[in-house]
Amino acid sequence: MFLAKVHVMLKPTVNDPQGLTIARALGRLGFDSVNSLRAGKYFELKIEGDDIVAAEVDVKSMCEKLLANPVIETFTYELRAL
Amino acid sequence: MFLAKVHVMLKPTVNDPQGLTIARALGRLGFDSVNSLRAGKYFELKIEGDDIVAAEVDVKSMCEKLLANPVIETFTYELRAL
Repeated sequence: MFLAKVHVMLKPTVNDPQGLTIARALGRLGFDSVNSLRAGKYFELKIEGDDIVAAEVDVKSMCEKLLANPVIETFTYELRAL
Repeated sequence: MFLAKVHVMLKPTVNDPQGLTIARALGRLGFDSVNSLRAGKYFELKIEGDDIVAAEVDVKSMCEKLLANPVIETFTYELRAL
């Protein structure tokens, strides 16, 4: 069994209205030190199997097919054995 | 300037319909090895200032006040200088 941690972020060139809204809200709450904020998604998956190479191939494919939108998002992942 | 990486996850005892839906969709796409999936949020904040202790206090307060809902979510964060 493996634990995969997947981060999905909008590409740097893509406008992030959610992040802008949160940053403005933090400013209104008095957090003047916030320079910028980007919002993303985070997934923790438990993957069955003993072969970390196969698990990594699967996770990459899951990101490309469902977890991220490759047109506007980038993804990173890391795996560790459980 | 500091970069803060904030992870917000539903507490383990809280039902995660988004994660369940994604896990089922992955199963339908042929990824039979997915045992479970939890969906969370991820924020990258740039914090101005030179004092990492003050920045950490700010980030913790931001999580408690806006970024996470302490009733149903937990948060973790890490800071590094830029």
